[in-house]
Amino acid sequence: MDMSQESNQDRAPLYETMLSHRFQRRSSFHVPGHKNGKGVDAAATEYFASIMSLDFTELAPLDDLHHPTGVILEAQSLAADCFSAEETFFLVNGSTVGNLAMIMSVCAKEEILIVQRNAHKSVIHGLMLAGAKAVFLPPRVDAATGLSTGVSLTDVIRALEDHPTAKGVLLTNPNYYGMGIELSDIAEAVHLRGIPLLVDEAHGAHFGFHPDLPKSALASGADAVVQSTHKMLTAMTMGAMLHVQGNRVDRHLIQQRLGMLQSSSPSYPLMASLDLSRRWIYQRGKESITKALQVVQHFRERVKSKLAAAAIMEKEEHNLSYTFLDPFKITLHDRTGTWSGFQLRDQLALAGCDAEMADAKYVLFQFSLASDEADAEHLFLALSDIFMKLSLKKQDFLEEITNNNRMQLFTQISAPILMALPKKSDASKVKAIPLEASIGFRSAEMVIPYPPGIPLLYIGEQITEQTAAYIKWVAKQGAWFQGAKDAGLTHISIFIE
Amino acid sequence: MDMSQESNQDRAPLYETMLSHRFQRRSSFHVPGHKNGKGVDAAATEYFASIMSLDFTELAPLDDLHHPTGVILEAQSLAADCFSAEETFFLVNGSTVGNLAMIMSVCAKEEILIVQRNAHKSVIHGLMLAGAKAVFLPPRVDAATGLSTGVSLTDVIRALEDHPTAKGVLLTNPNYYGMGIELSDIAEAVHLRGIPLLVDEAHGAHFGFHPDLPKSALASGADAVVQSTHKMLTAMTMGAMLHVQGNRVDRHLIQQRLGMLQSSSPSYPLMASLDLSRRWIYQRGKESITKALQVVQHFRERVKSKLAAAAIMEKEEHNLSYTFLDPFKITLHDRTGTWSGFQLRDQLALAGCDAEMADAKYVLFQFSLASDEADAEHLFLALSDIFMKLSLKKQDFLEEITNNNRMQLFTQISAPILMALPKKSDASKVKAIPLEASIGFRSAEMVIPYPPGIPLLYIGEQITEQTAAYIKWVAKQGAWFQGAKDAGLTHISIFIE
Repeated sequence: MDMSQESNQDRAPLYETMLSHRFQRRSSFHVPGHKNGKGVDAAATEYFASIMSLDFTELAPLDDLHHPTGVILEAQSLAADCFSAEETFFLVNGSTVGNLAMIMSVCAKEEILIVQRNAHKSVIHGLMLAGAKAVFLPPRVDAATGLSTGVSLTDVIRALEDHPTAKGVLLTNPNYYGMGIELSDIAEAVHLRGIPLLVDEAHGAHFGFHPDLPKSALASGADAVVQSTHKMLTAMTMGAMLHVQGNRVDRHLIQQRLGMLQSSSPSYPLMASLDLSRRWIYQRGKESITKALQVVQHFRERVKSKLAAAAIMEKEEHNLSYTFLDPFKITLHDRTGTWSGFQLRDQLALAGCDAEMADAKYVLFQFSLASDEADAEHLFLALSDIFMKLSLKKQDFLEEITNNNRMQLFTQISAPILMALPKKSDASKVKAIPLEASIGFRSAEMVIPYPPGIPLLYIGEQITEQTAAYIKWVAKQGAWFQGAKDAGLTHISIFIE
Repeated sequence: MDMSQESNQDRAPLYETMLSHRFQRRSSFHVPGHKNGKGVDAAATEYFASIMSLDFTELAPLDDLHHPTGVILEAQSLAADCFSAEETFFLVNGSTVGNLAMIMSVCAKEEILIVQRNAHKSVIHGLMLAGAKAVFLPPRVDAATGLSTGVSLTDVIRALEDHPTAKGVLLTNPNYYGMGIELSDIAEAVHLRGIPLLVDEAHGAHFGFHPDLPKSALASGADAVVQSTHKMLTAMTMGAMLHVQGNRVDRHLIQQRLGMLQSSSPSYPLMASLDLSRRWIYQRGKESITKALQVVQHFRERVKSKLAAAAIMEKEEHNLSYTFLDPFKITLHDRTGTWSGFQLRDQLALAGCDAEMADAKYVLFQFSLASDEADAEHLFLALSDIFMKLSLKKQDFLEEITNNNRMQLFTQISAPILMALPKKSDASKVKAIPLEASIGFRSAEMVIPYPPGIPLLYIGEQITEQTAAYIKWVAKQGAWFQGAKDAGLTHISIFIE
């Protein structure tokens, strides 16, 4: 590795080396079997041939993700420099694998990790793989919307005091809706105990690259941070990064965990797209973001001035349940209560506009630095059409939605709970019973309504009346339950004891 | 899912749906952030723009890998039908994740799995993640080449008898060099115990699709089989499949494990490439293989008749250490002993021909059904040039290589060994010492010379004199040690006890 090149952010060392390798018109007597794209289906040539000509494997000039010493190390170092980390690991298995590896490098069996409850399921899976004990922190709740946001500093400090043997604290920031909290105070409190703050910043890869965007978790002092480069920046789907700083996490162990959990034949196009995304955000980040933020702002203003029935979530200054709202996330609902978020999403899809997610009340739109005026115009027109219909057939279930709003399921810091791998199916111990009859039993499945993909029950957790009621409610709103045996969750698998 | 379409192998349901979605010119307000490729770096447009226009996420018409009910389920069903499985899981994290999920669905903590020792490191990692106990089976050794091949039926039966509580048997077939064994008898012996035979068939995705190719593991009765569709067929790198038949493995648990270990945002281009590969092998498999086998055969004959110093490995009929040799794998060495496999590989690379791997003696070329005459000609000419030089500067280290040959490290069935996750670094317990001084200590790192990627030491295994000597020898031959702290392995990390 040529260290003098390390801070040359105008280079894309991995991608450039792949291109130069490609132009040598080499003959392949190695995997992959498609032989630089020759084996691509004729009908798919237009889409796959060019990328497959770069679909390489670990030949000497192309380095090795699991033991990088050349162009991949160089690309990762440039990324670390660009994102203000000390070291960056490229991920080809999504933020999922970043969360797994981060947790498994910090927690051994039966050790305690303090974890924000409204986490992505990969956090729960990481705890299970580690066999760790979780102390769950309740999220704060935004009174205006009923949405779960971040944790409170008070709760973090209390949990640290109650569990002095905890190995770290893991937070999810921002949440799916772009609502986030200031992390600096929490980082300081965690560091006072000599343990690391881990942050799942899957939705914040763009943070810190523009004065109008929130501060990144790394800038707030987090020790290890996972970012979905594909979500808010421009990498291909599954491309993500794990950033590290300081010495509270063991980088060698992180590399070891990633070596277990990621393919031994990682995709070069995916890795190159990380290299290119890093260069893009460095070279054009500020300019693109400025432009895209104008698009979003313009859209927001037009909705506000023209579509009286459409309400866009805004952060009120006096609202202390969260600190910032990512301007690229637009959360919208029907003020009249005629349409649920699910219904709005479905109508927009018919008009060619695909939203990020919907819940009972809201529909969430994700903009990014690649969003343009044409897209925003498309969405505005589609919304106008939908809300134009509204005045003609206004219905009256506003109250129902308002009353039910979002229940608060988790309000207390939990006791330490041992997270174990789901066991081999054992028909004599597991039984599917109607949800209403399940109260008091321990769940034999993880219950994750999608969206927003937050685990309501993990395997082994006792089903309370409140949980069952909540599940019934979100199911009625049209949520579906990823991985559940009964996708609509009228029945739930429990352990007979 | 339209079941009447299920066996229409001329369709590629996932890819077709992606294309039709693409042509709707929809506006994206969801991840990924590149917005159908608009966010791609200008310099990379030619390679990335077309594929990124298909880089979707889990929108309703596009189904969900982790809970398939639509086009992904349909594509997987067609694959199951094509590969003669009962059920097929698409993998976007390589055969690696297939091996992990397969093992973790069969073995719980401290349960026994009977495992062929010369396995890919992902098998060792799967055992560690499961916390299982491994009973290692020694591979047979091909006397002619010194290469490790498959296990013997006798050893499998003895291990089953000695360990009646074993939960399954996992074999790797064929090995990296394409040498494989007949599995039917072994499958039968394993099934007599009521437990599953699991097969890592990473290098055999093409098996069974042509009369001149070996029988597939599924056809031999294996219960779960992992195949790297990208290695010997035409998928993009990281695209693989896990096939299942019968009821000795728990498919629900496999899906659960895959849901933990694979990205919650799996790559659609990768999944589409699996769909397209399946269609290709079904539609054109026999024809392409016939053609490519002629290319290989022609190459083989020319080397034999024109390059006296180049020896290509062939399976002798009386050789009982393995049953078949994949004709697409060409293993070649320098008869005069002038050049090691590493040296041959490096000279060929200078001539633009990239081999699959090299070891001290051999260089391995992987052909596939996408290999053509032009590639074969390129390789033949490059080899001719290299061997032409040979007569001018023949040297005399033939004997050294012959005498050292490949040592036999593993000859006995091991006792059950608990495979645990490498622990958090603990400087007071781990120390790097010179390899020669390490005998008798337990290794604190996994030692995997690459090539061929077979673990010589796992974490916690005692270092014997023989192992140390073997490591020293392969290191001297230029092997490098993936993931080792000292890449040349003159030092090794051990536990001080």
